[in-house]
Amino acid sequence: MKAVVLLSGGLDSATVLAIARKEGRDCHALSFRYGQRHEVELDSAKRVASSLGVSNHLVFDIPLDKWGGSALTDTIEVPKDRDEASFSEGIPITYVPARNTVFLALALAWSEVLEANEIWIGVNAMDYSGYPDCRPEFLQAFQEVARLGTKAGVEGKSGLTIRAPLQTMTKAEIISLGAGLGVDYGLTRSCYDPPSADIHCGHCDSCLLRMKGFSEAGIVDPTKYA
Amino acid sequence: MKAVVLLSGGLDSATVLAIARKEGRDCHALSFRYGQRHEVELDSAKRVASSLGVSNHLVFDIPLDKWGGSALTDTIEVPKDRDEASFSEGIPITYVPARNTVFLALALAWSEVLEANEIWIGVNAMDYSGYPDCRPEFLQAFQEVARLGTKAGVEGKSGLTIRAPLQTMTKAEIISLGAGLGVDYGLTRSCYDPPSADIHCGHCDSCLLRMKGFSEAGIVDPTKYA
Repeated sequence: MKAVVLLSGGLDSATVLAIARKEGRDCHALSFRYGQRHEVELDSAKRVASSLGVSNHLVFDIPLDKWGGSALTDTIEVPKDRDEASFSEGIPITYVPARNTVFLALALAWSEVLEANEIWIGVNAMDYSGYPDCRPEFLQAFQEVARLGTKAGVEGKSGLTIRAPLQTMTKAEIISLGAGLGVDYGLTRSCYDPPSADIHCGHCDSCLLRMKGFSEAGIVDPTKYA
Repeated sequence: MKAVVLLSGGLDSATVLAIARKEGRDCHALSFRYGQRHEVELDSAKRVASSLGVSNHLVFDIPLDKWGGSALTDTIEVPKDRDEASFSEGIPITYVPARNTVFLALALAWSEVLEANEIWIGVNAMDYSGYPDCRPEFLQAFQEVARLGTKAGVEGKSGLTIRAPLQTMTKAEIISLGAGLGVDYGLTRSCYDPPSADIHCGHCDSCLLRMKGFSEAGIVDPTKYA
């Protein structure tokens, strides 16, 4: 069965790709160069895609920095050393407006062309940064869009299924699962504001969640932090 | 009130923009260079935007021709002189996979950055080509995505409304309405396969619907057909 897998180069999407491969999917990985501050994640995406045996890896250009509005796509500073308790208080400035809607829309377009049956996405509503477009109800709504806005829906075919297997898992559970599936997390990058290509800052929300995940999973963290 | 208006350079979206302006909206027009065969429509979009007094007109690059899958974005031939009765039989090859989902997703992203309250779109489920992503149920589903996948939804604000005022109008009704609002249809382009920048082919589905619309509206068609 053909599947489009959204692959950022981070820890979650690498795990999702490993699950999809384990389930025997013919995987078409999709990454985005969207003007992100941490564009180096695309090198990780490339290495992860290759290590997990995808059929195809496409890097699609979508200049979301044209309108910015996020610390990841604009000149706004990335917050550092935030207390994890504050992650659930409001939406942080690293939220990229409608990013998952845009990424899923493009995955949907490619899926129609490929005649793929599934889109896999690594969203997670447990150890996350409070982004609206990571919530299960958002994914359900997008599933309806996928059903109604495509050829398959009109032709009465079953259409596309959105698969989000990490949705209710903690970061530690994700890492344990992925490690069991042979994911090489040393290939992944999570940092929002990397000081250099191979170093994680160790202070942004994403680094903090990553560190905590490895620590709670009791797995050696292969990451180089500044 | 701020609104993002999807503007293709065609007849429908020009009319939508005129309605939004009439209703006093502060309009931010959004067009896409998506690898379309008829990229000349962007010149029309520019002229229409300027003639109707938008605050801003953004042309966003989104290379949908990277995966093609449509006569508009691939080397597939545009069907000519189809019988209008056949428009409702299946989805034509000019359908661009998930195009309206992608365009609405990007409009949603820009709206969040602009803090706009509305997205206006010229879809029409009467005189149209049978595209799945023009149907009212699709727009309703996208409205839910807009509500759940954005900051406003989480913060309990009213969020964004999708406005599709042409949804149940015939092409003739659209043209009559727009003419009354002062739209200069001579600035617009509808052709999917223009033989040159200022000439419409006169044979693709879009040209046929355009001709019929002017004829039924009893309004002189300003278009130069080949």
